[in-house]
Amino acid sequence: MLELTVDLGDRSYPIFIGSGTLSDAAKLTPYVRAKQVAIVTNETVAPLYLDKLKALLNDFDVIDVVLPDGEAFKNLQTLEAVFDGLLQARHNRATTLIALGGGVVGDMTGFAAACYQRGVEFIQIPTTVLSQVDSSVGGKTGVNHPLGKNMIGAFHQPNAVIIDTDLLATLPDRELSAGIAEIIKYGLICDSEFFTWLQANIAKLMARDTDALVYAIHRSCADKANVVAEDEKESGIRAILNLGHTFGHAIETHLGYGEWLHGEAVAAGMVMAARLSCRLGDISREQVEQIKALLQQANLPVLPPEGMTPDDFLSIMAVDKKVLDSRLRLVLLEQVGKAVVTSEFDRSKLDEVLAEMCVC
Amino acid sequence: MLELTVDLGDRSYPIFIGSGTLSDAAKLTPYVRAKQVAIVTNETVAPLYLDKLKALLNDFDVIDVVLPDGEAFKNLQTLEAVFDGLLQARHNRATTLIALGGGVVGDMTGFAAACYQRGVEFIQIPTTVLSQVDSSVGGKTGVNHPLGKNMIGAFHQPNAVIIDTDLLATLPDRELSAGIAEIIKYGLICDSEFFTWLQANIAKLMARDTDALVYAIHRSCADKANVVAEDEKESGIRAILNLGHTFGHAIETHLGYGEWLHGEAVAAGMVMAARLSCRLGDISREQVEQIKALLQQANLPVLPPEGMTPDDFLSIMAVDKKVLDSRLRLVLLEQVGKAVVTSEFDRSKLDEVLAEMCVC
Repeated sequence: MLELTVDLGDRSYPIFIGSGTLSDAAKLTPYVRAKQVAIVTNETVAPLYLDKLKALLNDFDVIDVVLPDGEAFKNLQTLEAVFDGLLQARHNRATTLIALGGGVVGDMTGFAAACYQRGVEFIQIPTTVLSQVDSSVGGKTGVNHPLGKNMIGAFHQPNAVIIDTDLLATLPDRELSAGIAEIIKYGLICDSEFFTWLQANIAKLMARDTDALVYAIHRSCADKANVVAEDEKESGIRAILNLGHTFGHAIETHLGYGEWLHGEAVAAGMVMAARLSCRLGDISREQVEQIKALLQQANLPVLPPEGMTPDDFLSIMAVDKKVLDSRLRLVLLEQVGKAVVTSEFDRSKLDEVLAEMCVC
Repeated sequence: MLELTVDLGDRSYPIFIGSGTLSDAAKLTPYVRAKQVAIVTNETVAPLYLDKLKALLNDFDVIDVVLPDGEAFKNLQTLEAVFDGLLQARHNRATTLIALGGGVVGDMTGFAAACYQRGVEFIQIPTTVLSQVDSSVGGKTGVNHPLGKNMIGAFHQPNAVIIDTDLLATLPDRELSAGIAEIIKYGLICDSEFFTWLQANIAKLMARDTDALVYAIHRSCADKANVVAEDEKESGIRAILNLGHTFGHAIETHLGYGEWLHGEAVAAGMVMAARLSCRLGDISREQVEQIKALLQQANLPVLPPEGMTPDDFLSIMAVDKKVLDSRLRLVLLEQVGKAVVTSEFDRSKLDEVLAEMCVC
């Protein structure tokens, strides 16, 4: 089993990564604050892993809240179910929430923990590749609004992140691919050596080879932990983690949440960012093709959805969280392995890329 | 005009207190971060003061969100209206929210600011005595849940608090009284000299004498600022600010939000806490009578609502935010001018006080 620390002073916390991590109560219970525990999960994950988790918590007063599955339910209305469960069971400020699920469950549980009685502790047990390499680490929590993704939320760090790669055995292929999109992202934004490793090992990842998964997840978490430690609340460098996300969020908002998986939208968005970076003279056409090829080997989309127009992108991107005083900021690639956040780019090049890639 | 500072390191902020403060743009605009401003108010306050406030903000892009009036609307559903307004107007992370209203508007606006895009800045312009002396200062924000008051929220400090006592001219008498309950609270918990001043000057306050109001509001804010500076997130001493609130919240929850005003419920709750303190041997019967007399001169209730039983109190108080590992903690008076938070009290005395005061 591997271990990492997210270094945030008195809010530092460990990430445990390995095969079978969730069979070890010693990795979990030291991070539970008091007697009361509330497991938040969804109707897909609950039948698979809820009993396994509860078996580690025999000495605690445990309740569970089972949410409907999917990004379409990542909203304030569904969040109320968590508060209902906590209050009906009279959970107090010393309760510990545990997120057992993918990115949606993790983001919602973290936000519920941030808000319940003005803040309680929580633990992340991510069950998808995407949440294991990205959303469970770093303390971004929140829900969507019909007009924008993750528009309502908080920064709230977990007490610990417990990643068991065995849980990926039940993950649908499409979700595996979506998670690999975020893994590829780390190679692109800050780790060219990892990008090269991914080009050589993508087939192993797609075949769910345990060693390859543990390696890729550990390396992704390490890359993310470094960025988060440097800039917890995204006043600067942390925004590079959003490579492809501004385009991707526009896709998700346009289609309605849940049509495309988050990682699929990010994949297409990363190709759009790469092509814009190329057009601005930063990376080569050949590199764009390498990025596309790697994403395609992971069965990911490399074009926006059919029928989505440049205007659809621009109007949704105008409310992106990275917009400041009306200037659109984007994450672009200076090279493979080095991303920058900038509003200093030729807007006409963005229009050209949108026109070229939106196949109506 | 008087000025105070709430001393919280890099989150310190000023409180301006006086007659006519809201006619001075120089007190407001330095605390607005960028071009975008969203004023959140309610349908009672908007016709009275919204235009006056907007006149100070000619150089900004201003939107307003007008909420329905009352504690009954302090919930997540109503909060959505604020997010709708912000997103429809494409407000970004540099937006500044301004709360123009009483405690409900202030708590909801502050919570919206805490959550919008994971946190934006906000300014408090409280328009009731209660919000001027209490809820606008200290960064507690949130909404109610059907099973408990302020159960969903965040600590989020404003950039500034602007208190104009002229705005109190339009305040209904009942709201004036409710605010005075919180003023009396400061005398009881930490400022016996102020309690004596209040005994001498309660008639002036009830007659809305400007000098008396400015004095009492300033002194209350100073007392609160001291407590908050010592313990921002209520890990200890800050809980004394909740004198009467555990009983009071139970009354509000039992009756349904909005039946009794918050200050009215706190007034009855403070008498309950005082009687329990007396029964535990800390304050005298005469002092309890002095407290009751002062509250009665402010036209405030000194008994729980008719028909509310000891069991009603105990079952609601069991989910109070101050409960830790099943032990009920209460704010009690060691003397007039000194409160303590404790779970070390004889539970049978609480039962006796409840039995004695609940007139069924």
